[in-house]
Amino acid sequence: MRTQEHLYRQDEYFNLESGSALPGFQLKYTTLGELNPEKSNVVWVCHALTGSSNFVDWWGALFEEEGPFDPREYFIVCVNTLGGCYGSTGPLSVNPESSTPFFHDFPTITNWDIVRSFDLLRTHLEIEKIHTLIGGSLGGQQALTWAIYNPEVCINLIPIACNAFHSPWGIAINESQRMAIEADQTWQMRNANAGSNGLKAARAISMTTFRSFEAFQLQGEKTNRLDQYRAASYQRYQGEKLAKRFDAFSYWTLTKVMDNHQVGRKFRSPEDALRKIRAKTLVIGIDSDLLFPVSEQKFIYNYIPNAQLEIIQSPYGHDAFLIELETLKVIIHNFLKFKFVYDE
Amino acid sequence: MRTQEHLYRQDEYFNLESGSALPGFQLKYTTLGELNPEKSNVVWVCHALTGSSNFVDWWGALFEEEGPFDPREYFIVCVNTLGGCYGSTGPLSVNPESSTPFFHDFPTITNWDIVRSFDLLRTHLEIEKIHTLIGGSLGGQQALTWAIYNPEVCINLIPIACNAFHSPWGIAINESQRMAIEADQTWQMRNANAGSNGLKAARAISMTTFRSFEAFQLQGEKTNRLDQYRAASYQRYQGEKLAKRFDAFSYWTLTKVMDNHQVGRKFRSPEDALRKIRAKTLVIGIDSDLLFPVSEQKFIYNYIPNAQLEIIQSPYGHDAFLIELETLKVIIHNFLKFKFVYDE
Repeated sequence: MRTQEHLYRQDEYFNLESGSALPGFQLKYTTLGELNPEKSNVVWVCHALTGSSNFVDWWGALFEEEGPFDPREYFIVCVNTLGGCYGSTGPLSVNPESSTPFFHDFPTITNWDIVRSFDLLRTHLEIEKIHTLIGGSLGGQQALTWAIYNPEVCINLIPIACNAFHSPWGIAINESQRMAIEADQTWQMRNANAGSNGLKAARAISMTTFRSFEAFQLQGEKTNRLDQYRAASYQRYQGEKLAKRFDAFSYWTLTKVMDNHQVGRKFRSPEDALRKIRAKTLVIGIDSDLLFPVSEQKFIYNYIPNAQLEIIQSPYGHDAFLIELETLKVIIHNFLKFKFVYDE
Repeated sequence: MRTQEHLYRQDEYFNLESGSALPGFQLKYTTLGELNPEKSNVVWVCHALTGSSNFVDWWGALFEEEGPFDPREYFIVCVNTLGGCYGSTGPLSVNPESSTPFFHDFPTITNWDIVRSFDLLRTHLEIEKIHTLIGGSLGGQQALTWAIYNPEVCINLIPIACNAFHSPWGIAINESQRMAIEADQTWQMRNANAGSNGLKAARAISMTTFRSFEAFQLQGEKTNRLDQYRAASYQRYQGEKLAKRFDAFSYWTLTKVMDNHQVGRKFRSPEDALRKIRAKTLVIGIDSDLLFPVSEQKFIYNYIPNAQLEIIQSPYGHDAFLIELETLKVIIHNFLKFKFVYDE
């Protein structure tokens, strides 16, 4: 079964949480499978910071036949986030008001804005209920935010390796990455490659926070050299690889989205916001996650009324949500096999 | 009691482990207290990556009267490392062969080279035995290396928050910092400020690896902003602060020294190298240290013949070796009060 690519356009002004607005937007989205007549088989996937809507590229194992979301049974949707660079409106999109790309002028957006855009697409697709809303990292933050923004829509919710509000630690790490982008003088230029070397350094920084001491040990290392270590080459390779497929503007924008993630901003507190979730929820954490430590998933689990918590044992740190797919499949399968009666 | 500043010059060619050589070098060193007639009261301090020889600036509490190293009793010596920028020969020193600063041409050096330079100064000062050799982080790596290079000299050894060989994890983190320096196009220039913005980003990266999730939590954070978070300002402040007192060339050189740290390179293995240590050794680790996790101090402890291990409980991560001074004072005091009989 093959994925299909789609575009959704919204031409009206879209007011943002910051007080600014986008003069309309487009969302690129990917689907797999067929919407059933009852429209009860929708799985909605939210991608991570540098992800695209093409979820089978980076999470394929979850969407294979006989997997937890068998495409013969489910209609799977994934949207490239606003601010991204894989087809949805982002900093490299042309601002209709200036007829040039936004570049540095792309407005501050938030996960609240992003899930509002998703919800408009959902309405457009005439989907009333989402069987399962799932995402990891930034995508987990978005899934959580959406289940709070519109609690009636989401039946099952699976936020993975994420948090209810971004930590000072996470903000500090993102700021160091933005400082690396700014240190690259080309970042001042208005072209798609601006800040490219800074972006490479930013990615290298993030690779360490995505992994762990143990994960880097697994790479091994020759011991008698004085330079040119394998771990250093790996960092350069990861930087080069990202700079070929991503731009510093989207990276800047989406790290800011992660920083300003705070489910409680529209409510009395984050606890209060989490209590609004109606979905049956499976919160998943990773024991070695440095960026989103398990204390953050425990917090989410503690305040969502109908939640269970699973902690994956893995040496791969935060990245385990993209690596430990066999474990994820089992956990998700077990979660979904218990029939859920929606309490009206 | 006041510290005194000194210079030691060595005008002969100094061959380096890399096969290269320095055309002589100078070492800036700071002393406190008086060498006693028996020359049995020498405490030698090795500083961390961005440190200076002025140990009372950054570790003063250990060298106060009534402290573990009371300057009325001990003669305390600390040398600015080769490759540093606080008075010893480093990349900004003038290369006598070209009459211009070395800048990018400063040769690759190692902790082995550095402790050889310290040992020449020790001989020059006619010090036969070091009562206690102590250092944290890069300084701990150097203390350990010196106790292996010249096992007869060191009576007590206190390596803190360090390792026997640098980890792929540590190398990857350092490489991401050097990538940030390289992303700054001014890094190509031959002046003391080259790469200054990259250095700020590098420092911001290192601040996260020096601390922990919990340490950043302690800073607190306002929750309803969309930008200008305190944790981000803190990162910028730390970057600016370092760029005023340090240069990207020394930073580059000394992160490479940390990367190529491997006590086993001259021996069959790191285990074999550690077994050569004759000193009574107190290995100190920090439970929340991300950069040098306690597994690394346990490794050191396991192979040094006469060693004990203390793990400090602290939320401050690696930086705890500069913060938890009251705990350090107690641990060191307890270690030293048991008289050591040197086994000839």
